[in-house]
Amino acid sequence: MEHLIEDIEYAEFLFDRFYSVGSTKSGGVTRLGYTKEEDEMHRIFKELGAAKGYESYEDEVGNTFIMNEYSGEEEYHLIGSHLDSVIDGGRYDGVCGIITGLLLLEWAKRDGLKIPVRVGAMRCEESSNFGRSTIGSGLITKEVYKHDIGEAVNKDGVTLREIFKERGYHIHPQKISGVKEYIELHIEQGKVLEEYGDKVGIVQTIAGPRRYQIHVHGTAEHSGATPMDMRNDALCAAAEIILEIEEIGKEESKHQSVATVGIINNYPNALNVIPGEVLLGVDMRGIDFDSLERMETRLKTICKRVCQKRKIKYFREKTSDIPPINMSPDLQQKLLKAAKNLRIPHRTMISGAGHDAMSFASLCDTAMVFIPCAKGISHNKKEFATIESICDGAKVIYEYWKEEMQ
Amino acid sequence: MEHLIEDIEYAEFLFDRFYSVGSTKSGGVTRLGYTKEEDEMHRIFKELGAAKGYESYEDEVGNTFIMNEYSGEEEYHLIGSHLDSVIDGGRYDGVCGIITGLLLLEWAKRDGLKIPVRVGAMRCEESSNFGRSTIGSGLITKEVYKHDIGEAVNKDGVTLREIFKERGYHIHPQKISGVKEYIELHIEQGKVLEEYGDKVGIVQTIAGPRRYQIHVHGTAEHSGATPMDMRNDALCAAAEIILEIEEIGKEESKHQSVATVGIINNYPNALNVIPGEVLLGVDMRGIDFDSLERMETRLKTICKRVCQKRKIKYFREKTSDIPPINMSPDLQQKLLKAAKNLRIPHRTMISGAGHDAMSFASLCDTAMVFIPCAKGISHNKKEFATIESICDGAKVIYEYWKEEMQ
Repeated sequence: MEHLIEDIEYAEFLFDRFYSVGSTKSGGVTRLGYTKEEDEMHRIFKELGAAKGYESYEDEVGNTFIMNEYSGEEEYHLIGSHLDSVIDGGRYDGVCGIITGLLLLEWAKRDGLKIPVRVGAMRCEESSNFGRSTIGSGLITKEVYKHDIGEAVNKDGVTLREIFKERGYHIHPQKISGVKEYIELHIEQGKVLEEYGDKVGIVQTIAGPRRYQIHVHGTAEHSGATPMDMRNDALCAAAEIILEIEEIGKEESKHQSVATVGIINNYPNALNVIPGEVLLGVDMRGIDFDSLERMETRLKTICKRVCQKRKIKYFREKTSDIPPINMSPDLQQKLLKAAKNLRIPHRTMISGAGHDAMSFASLCDTAMVFIPCAKGISHNKKEFATIESICDGAKVIYEYWKEEMQ
Repeated sequence: MEHLIEDIEYAEFLFDRFYSVGSTKSGGVTRLGYTKEEDEMHRIFKELGAAKGYESYEDEVGNTFIMNEYSGEEEYHLIGSHLDSVIDGGRYDGVCGIITGLLLLEWAKRDGLKIPVRVGAMRCEESSNFGRSTIGSGLITKEVYKHDIGEAVNKDGVTLREIFKERGYHIHPQKISGVKEYIELHIEQGKVLEEYGDKVGIVQTIAGPRRYQIHVHGTAEHSGATPMDMRNDALCAAAEIILEIEEIGKEESKHQSVATVGIINNYPNALNVIPGEVLLGVDMRGIDFDSLERMETRLKTICKRVCQKRKIKYFREKTSDIPPINMSPDLQQKLLKAAKNLRIPHRTMISGAGHDAMSFASLCDTAMVFIPCAKGISHNKKEFATIESICDGAKVIYEYWKEEMQ
């Protein structure tokens, strides 16, 4: 749809302000949760709010909120997303949702729409630093699975508890209050919208990630002097497990499930030593409980079979188990109606990726609006979405608000 | 065989002096080539020589030599090995050969055997720091394959050239002169001696390592939002290659060849990102040229087939190609005769591992004496050999010397 030139320019301005933070040599960005790069993103966010006369505050875990004048006492609409990234990731993941919040504040002000709104930038949504996702939003919504989060360790081996202590944050904060609804705009991080030529997707369900660590213990021996039939090569066992996990994902893909080994750490990782220990990080997702259960059962069987065959020890632990989470059916209907009113091509869809919206779903009516990203590529420097797409999605939310306020 | 209590005690004393250098939490040692841990090993070596009244010197690349009074002008017998280790390696690999040299000096002095002897501790025999092995011995013997060694990069990304400049070493040193014979005692790093109940192995041939790096380039995408059939997972491709390489090794094992993937680096190595780039470090060894050729050909075929099938790009480079190296037949015979004289159970055998002896084989008569190590485990904290075994092997060399000097 068409947008005012000033809207496009403002959105572009916002995007540019965040652009350089955490830039890497390869052209991507690294803005890990609870690092100085993420701090810088939040500082800019506050600055952008202040420039438009909005007050801001930081909560007990470092999430930053910008609020308009109507959101002080009344229950408010929360527009949220995150400002951290994966390692060498893209510039749209999370940031688009924050830009959307700032656009919405601006439009409401311009039109004199007296709606209570806060825009919330959640901390550490990505699991890239601590191996755990949606930390900021999970803590303030009291998500059950965050009870042991203090012991999560970052890339440098420091626990979240230590980092919180140093920063003066609280690992057990007050539960967030006053949120009427939570809406998050996000790039799809898949190719569905692009393939169908739709501009906006209204999310029905967010697939729940089940995550596992598999420790494979072989025997580190000299690679030149140990005959092939006397080896317990941990990496070869791990390779078999990796391919079996891929197979599980393929077989369950008809249920919209996926299975990925994203992490492999090999020890001692030297040319002249047969690998003695390998750690695999496994991520399985789906919206179908039975499919998730089958995948987990097969994962167990595979580890046992491969390691028994190779006379290798292993240890498997589940590090995360988030059930599929449904978005508010009522909000979905309202957003679909808004898209229809605006004649923006749209569809309902699932989210394969996890989002801060998962944390809010148990607290209040929650919805997600997806916009297309080029070729579905995300978590990569090549990630790209258009400013127009951000405005399209933001307009759908705004249209719904206008209907509500009539 | 039986040994004098004073010999056992001296050998134990020597072993203990090196014991703590580079100790790791897990119980092993990390004494990487051209690091301060290796420096400390060389300092102790010099000190041990000085304590017995021997002169010592460092050559242009940092190798340390201890010499007896007869080795100044005449051609000398060189007893050599190394004092560096792999990451979290054992305390016997290399060190046993150095202890042997010091024992031999002592015995010759005690018996008034006027034989010119030097003991040489070679730098950076292991490839664990620079991805290249036998650097110290290779440089001073002018091994052809060391011509580009200056550009080799250590674990911290620093080139050998820079390190040499800082330390005042020369990347193109004078070729070592005056060496009559080079003999190296080493733990077997395999299980052959143990399995046959032999105490000493006389090496016929050292298997030549061929080494490769394989770079696999897939597409880093969101692990939750990318359907299984739309992926280019670099780690899955790498896993297939790993298992195929294992298969190559197994099939060629009848020719005493082995094939190992010792290194895997995955990028970005995050739970929520499909692996985009993987680097594999491959090590193939054998004593049969045809077998090595077949393994290399199959490696090429495999990379092509796997990556074509998966629509993934790759890049393969050979980083090392050392032909199998024969030890001096004459020296082998003499050492076998010595073992027979001493009634020490012995056998001839091949060496799967590379050693500094490879560097000297083109320069002078060269031999290797293997002693058993427990369960064949090496390059591991569990590496173990007995002090008696060291004395057994040293006695064989000494017996040969006595025959020579008659």
